[in-house]
Amino acid sequence: MNILLFDQSELQDNQLILNDRRAEHIRKILRAGCGDQLKAGQINGPIGRATIQEIDKKRIILQVELNGPLRPRPVTSLILALPRPIMLKRILSQATTLGVSNIYLINSRRVEKSFFHASLLEENNMLPHLLHGLEQAGDTWLPEVSIHQRFKPFIEDLLPEISENSPARLVAHPEATSFLPELIKIPLQQKVLLAIGPEGGWIDYEIDKFKEQGFQPFTLGPRILRVDTAVISLLAQLDLLRNSGLKAE
Amino acid sequence: MNILLFDQSELQDNQLILNDRRAEHIRKILRAGCGDQLKAGQINGPIGRATIQEIDKKRIILQVELNGPLRPRPVTSLILALPRPIMLKRILSQATTLGVSNIYLINSRRVEKSFFHASLLEENNMLPHLLHGLEQAGDTWLPEVSIHQRFKPFIEDLLPEISENSPARLVAHPEATSFLPELIKIPLQQKVLLAIGPEGGWIDYEIDKFKEQGFQPFTLGPRILRVDTAVISLLAQLDLLRNSGLKAE
Repeated sequence: MNILLFDQSELQDNQLILNDRRAEHIRKILRAGCGDQLKAGQINGPIGRATIQEIDKKRIILQVELNGPLRPRPVTSLILALPRPIMLKRILSQATTLGVSNIYLINSRRVEKSFFHASLLEENNMLPHLLHGLEQAGDTWLPEVSIHQRFKPFIEDLLPEISENSPARLVAHPEATSFLPELIKIPLQQKVLLAIGPEGGWIDYEIDKFKEQGFQPFTLGPRILRVDTAVISLLAQLDLLRNSGLKAE
Repeated sequence: MNILLFDQSELQDNQLILNDRRAEHIRKILRAGCGDQLKAGQINGPIGRATIQEIDKKRIILQVELNGPLRPRPVTSLILALPRPIMLKRILSQATTLGVSNIYLINSRRVEKSFFHASLLEENNMLPHLLHGLEQAGDTWLPEVSIHQRFKPFIEDLLPEISENSPARLVAHPEATSFLPELIKIPLQQKVLLAIGPEGGWIDYEIDKFKEQGFQPFTLGPRILRVDTAVISLLAQLDLLRNSGLKAE
C-alpha cells in the first residue's frame, strides 16, 4: 500500500475513521503509530498526507490534508476480450498499477461464454483488485470498468463514441505485419485505445470490424504471450513511446 | 502449450515417447489423434514438427523432424534481487516467455533472508516454471538461472566477467532521474544486462556498486510497480527499443 486511498464520502471535517483492511494494514504492515504521516489520496481526486491522531485495536482516526496535486488522468483505455476470471483479476490489478482510463470487457468468438457468469464480474467484486493496483501505483485515478456481452453492438454502436477523441486506435493481432512503433506517428499525450484479443486471437470478422472503426492491427512479434503478459507489455511500451518523445523512423 | 519441448536425450531415432504431462496435454487439451502434427522443438536447439504415430492411454509415440531454424538466443539477461517465492514463480515463467538469456538471482539488503531457503530454489523446482514460459512463447531457448547468496562477491568477482560483452548495463532505481530511452544509445542487438531491485529498491551502497561496474540507473516513472510488473514492463520496453530502430532524441 503505497498510498492510503479513501472515498470522498468517508471524509468528514478532514477526518477519516478507519476500521477495515486499511486500518489492519496501517497497524500490522506499516506498524505506524500516533503522529505518523502517510501518503493519502482521494479516489479520483487529489493527493496529500494523513496524520494518525488516534490508533487502537478498534479504529484509527486520521487528519487528512489534501494539498498535493491532482495527477493527470491516464489516457490509455483497454478493450479486452473477457479473459478467464483468474487472469482477469491479475489484469485488473496490474493494468490499474500501470495506469488506464477505462477497461471495456467485451465478447469475442473465442471467449468462453461461461466467463460472463463469473462472480468476479458482479458489482463491487472487481473493485478490490482495482484498488489494490491503485494502492501499489500510489495514484488516485480509478479505471472505469464496463462489461459488454455482445460484440457487434459494442463495436458498431458504442465504439464510435468511445473512439471519437482517440486518434490512436490499436488492435493486437498475431497475423499483423506492423510492429507497434511503426504505427505511432501521433503525439502520445493524446488518448490511445488498445484492443487485446482472447487466447487464440480475434477472428477475421472481428479484426475487420475493428478496422472499420479506424483500428490499426499490429503484431507483438514471434513470441506468443499470455493475455496478462501482453496487457502489461503493451501498456509499458505505450508508456515508453509516450514519455520518450520517440518517433517511428 | 504452443510448442512441444523435449530434451535431446529423449530423442531416439527421431522418435519421442511421452507418458507425462505433455502426453496428458496432447490428449486432453489439444485432443490430437494419430497423424496429427504439432510444432515441436529441442530445448536449446532447433524447431520442427512432431507427427503422432501411436496414441493410447499409456503413451504417445511421435516422429520428430527438426527442419526448422535455430532461433536467435535472447540477448537480455536479468539480475534480480531474489523476490518472494510466489512472485519468483510468475517472473520465471513470464520472463522466459518474453525471452531472457540468464537470470541471476542475487541478495540485497532488502531481500528477506528466508527467501533463499525456499524450496522453489532447490534443483529442478524452477525448471517447470521456465518450461511453462517457454512453451507459451513457442521458443526453445531455456534461460540459465543461478543463485548468488552474497551481494559483494557477485558484484565484485562475477559481474565484471558477466558484463564484459554487455555494453548496455541498466539498473532500475526509483530515485534515478533518467528514463530508459535516454540511456539507450547503442544498437540493441547487443547484449543488455538489466538489474531490478527488491520491493523498496536497492540501497545506496548497492547502487554505487552497480555504478562502479558501469551500470546506469534509470527510473520507471512516478508509478510504483510490483517487481513482477516491473520485470515484464522493462523486458517489453527493451524489446520495443530493440525491434524498432528507435533512437533517443
